[in-house]
Amino acid sequence: MVGLSQKDVLRADQFSREEIALIAKTARRYEEAVARGKVLRDLRGKILCTLFFEPSTRTRLSFEAAMLRLGGQVVSVAEPKSSSAAKGESLHDTIRTVEGYADVIVLRHPEIGAADKAARSTNRPVINAGDGAGQHPTQSLLDVYTIQKEKGKVDGLTVALVGDLKNGRTVHSLSQVLSLFDVRLILVSPPALRMPREIVEALKGRRVVEETPDLLKAVREADVVYMTRIQRERFADPTEYERLKDSYILTQEALREGKGRVTVMHPLPRVNEIETSVDQDSGAAYFRQAANGIPVRMALLALVTGAI
Amino acid sequence: MVGLSQKDVLRADQFSREEIALIAKTARRYEEAVARGKVLRDLRGKILCTLFFEPSTRTRLSFEAAMLRLGGQVVSVAEPKSSSAAKGESLHDTIRTVEGYADVIVLRHPEIGAADKAARSTNRPVINAGDGAGQHPTQSLLDVYTIQKEKGKVDGLTVALVGDLKNGRTVHSLSQVLSLFDVRLILVSPPALRMPREIVEALKGRRVVEETPDLLKAVREADVVYMTRIQRERFADPTEYERLKDSYILTQEALREGKGRVTVMHPLPRVNEIETSVDQDSGAAYFRQAANGIPVRMALLALVTGAI
Amino acid sequence: MVGLSQKDVLRADQFSREEIALIAKTARRYEEAVARGKVLRDLRGKILCTLFFEPSTRTRLSFEAAMLRLGGQVVSVAEPKSSSAAKGESLHDTIRTVEGYADVIVLRHPEIGAADKAARSTNRPVINAGDGAGQHPTQSLLDVYTIQKEKGKVDGLTVALVGDLKNGRTVHSLSQVLSLFDVRLILVSPPALRMPREIVEALKGRRVVEETPDLLKAVREADVVYMTRIQRERFADPTEYERLKDSYILTQEALREGKGRVTVMHPLPRVNEIETSVDQDSGAAYFRQAANGIPVRMALLALVTGAI
Repeated sequence: MVGLSQKDVLRADQFSREEIALIAKTARRYEEAVARGKVLRDLRGKILCTLFFEPSTRTRLSFEAAMLRLGGQVVSVAEPKSSSAAKGESLHDTIRTVEGYADVIVLRHPEIGAADKAARSTNRPVINAGDGAGQHPTQSLLDVYTIQKEKGKVDGLTVALVGDLKNGRTVHSLSQVLSLFDVRLILVSPPALRMPREIVEALKGRRVVEETPDLLKAVREADVVYMTRIQRERFADPTEYERLKDSYILTQEALREGKGRVTVMHPLPRVNEIETSVDQDSGAAYFRQAANGIPVRMALLALVTGAI
Repeated sequence: MVGLSQKDVLRADQFSREEIALIAKTARRYEEAVARGKVLRDLRGKILCTLFFEPSTRTRLSFEAAMLRLGGQVVSVAEPKSSSAAKGESLHDTIRTVEGYADVIVLRHPEIGAADKAARSTNRPVINAGDGAGQHPTQSLLDVYTIQKEKGKVDGLTVALVGDLKNGRTVHSLSQVLSLFDVRLILVSPPALRMPREIVEALKGRRVVEETPDLLKAVREADVVYMTRIQRERFADPTEYERLKDSYILTQEALREGKGRVTVMHPLPRVNEIETSVDQDSGAAYFRQAANGIPVRMALLALVTGAI
Repeated sequence: MVGLSQKDVLRADQFSREEIALIAKTARRYEEAVARGKVLRDLRGKILCTLFFEPSTRTRLSFEAAMLRLGGQVVSVAEPKSSSAAKGESLHDTIRTVEGYADVIVLRHPEIGAADKAARSTNRPVINAGDGAGQHPTQSLLDVYTIQKEKGKVDGLTVALVGDLKNGRTVHSLSQVLSLFDVRLILVSPPALRMPREIVEALKGRRVVEETPDLLKAVREADVVYMTRIQRERFADPTEYERLKDSYILTQEALREGKGRVTVMHPLPRVNEIETSVDQDSGAAYFRQAANGIPVRMALLALVTGAI
């Protein structure tokens, strides 16, 4: 029997396919209920604490809206400097205090491993909303949910991950989750920003994985193109950056090279990696992807609190 | 048939007299219900996002309290720096993302035209809570609502607008809305801070408008005196500021020169434009005016979301 | 007939034993209801405004969670700089405006007396959540509630207050409240940081009070040890600080010197005044104490708004 009651959500690779299916099924049900204008009460009387030691408006609002849509309530620490940590309090003590105020805790923290540490400090369910360069598991879950919705399936697809694969938390986690499915991965990055070897080796043990610096080649072969930002400051050689940056801007022209309707995704915020003209394309899924964060996080909140 | 369902609230001059009457009627009904302690549920299950790219505690709290009084819920971005805009995201992308989280968006932004741009980005209703030196339409609506409540009517009144009429967004919008009514306007400002010519010309096409630097003269003739702040930094000549600043402080003595009970208004916060001794005067309406923001914003939220 | 309806909560010493008993009884009832998972609606339709002119995450979240647990709603100003005070508005005007938005106001302010001033400005109940070096009455109420819960009684106990007794708002207020009970107080501080003479004199008029710099001696005699932070910057002589600071770190070894189970309390956040190994001790009550803030503040909110 699959269940997530009282469990923490800490890493993208903690989930089995069965658990991902349960989350997706629950999310779909909530999405339809909200679309019908149904007022839900599954988390009535429950309180979520969003504890953000670094700001992330998008993620915070998405969790808060998810909690409110379920009839729950929210208390929020949106700003690091107003927290007791500024007075020298340990994360352990902060969590022990917050557990007295809330039934479930969503934590964003600049340090890798902070969510694990928080989860060890409390019996309340902790959901990791990003721990530095570490994990951001709910992003990966909504990414897979989006692929499933856009394509009707995940197995059998070719997915291109594009951008700074060396430093990108999002693509590390997503590639791990996708390796649970029968997916062919194309990793598109400049040589200097390739996916870490240990992740690639682990993936190759399970799936077909190709690496290329060529975005256009990937677009031609992929069902899903997952764009991420390339940051200038990651390049040792500025001329290398200048040479490559334009290769990693997805244009309408490039998209037309794809076979059929290519689904374009992006964790947002975008700077200029996807031309705004692409927004009109029926395959441009990134704003739908952001909206999918609500039902997926509703599902997680309801499941870990044991409400359903 | 007058209606505002799914409409945006962007400019003070977008409203007809019929629409203003509908808003006022709805606001009055809500005000009475709240005063009776009735728990309203008209926006149950709905979420408002207050998106403030510059801080404005008063306006934000007023919208949030209005939404909560209607049984709705709120997610909030109160601080500009914690928003994705800091990462280089366009307003269009921010709005496209936020529309996935909320049923109605209240936007405050430092740039003129930002609310119009936001409204074009989404099908969700957008309410402009101030766009730089541009518009602040809900302030004008609550101002007119206040005049109606305090005086029992708007037509036939003489209204003096006092202060920095050149730069004051509030008085620009209010004068436009008042020109829908049979109102005589007295514009009281130093010569250097007169109302822009194009606004005055447009007003004069419809109503009797006088301009004077003399506050006392205006008080003697007006039914309503609408005070605003004069800011030192607006003056090219500091001696001119020193000479004028005291003329624009409303005292009890000046108020006694008025005919009958003069209604004194102010968009707040006040610094020293109205002596605190005036607060005791039965005509001092500025705190009642601030409180009127709740029912007026309740009416707008309920109308634009189509809840009523 | 004891009652708190429409009263302000401004000072720890405003309460009679009967009022403290009423608050504790109400808090106990709420605590049990929440523990049973009951969804309360006592403050349904009511709005709390948390107005924090200086940040205090812990206190703010505790009040907000209390309000939400009662079925009420919250609007919040968590950051001083986003408030209208930054534009030069007086506290009086801010409160007069906020009273239009909320049914009860919780105020945190850096200036002594700010809460009293706020209470004079409005008919809405005002709860003081800390006014500079002044009062923090709800902390004292939850402290007494905690002692009662941990020890089953307050009368007859020996309570040691430890740390910077000169500057500590928390210990000033708590000692005043405890003087309503038959309690023996041991005041433990370095000579330079002793409790102000006027407070000690007032206490001595009613209770047995001893002063000592010796923490271990106090632990041996006390039923309750209330630790607070000692701040380096309070010492004129740094060598004095270096000499004393270790005497005021509560260790497991020291705790074992106590008679029976010593209850250890701390208003939190802790820096290093209590070794983390003490957390495992059954008498370590500080996290339970923090959690007790919820039912005690629920009781206060319900009582002052007249909801019960």
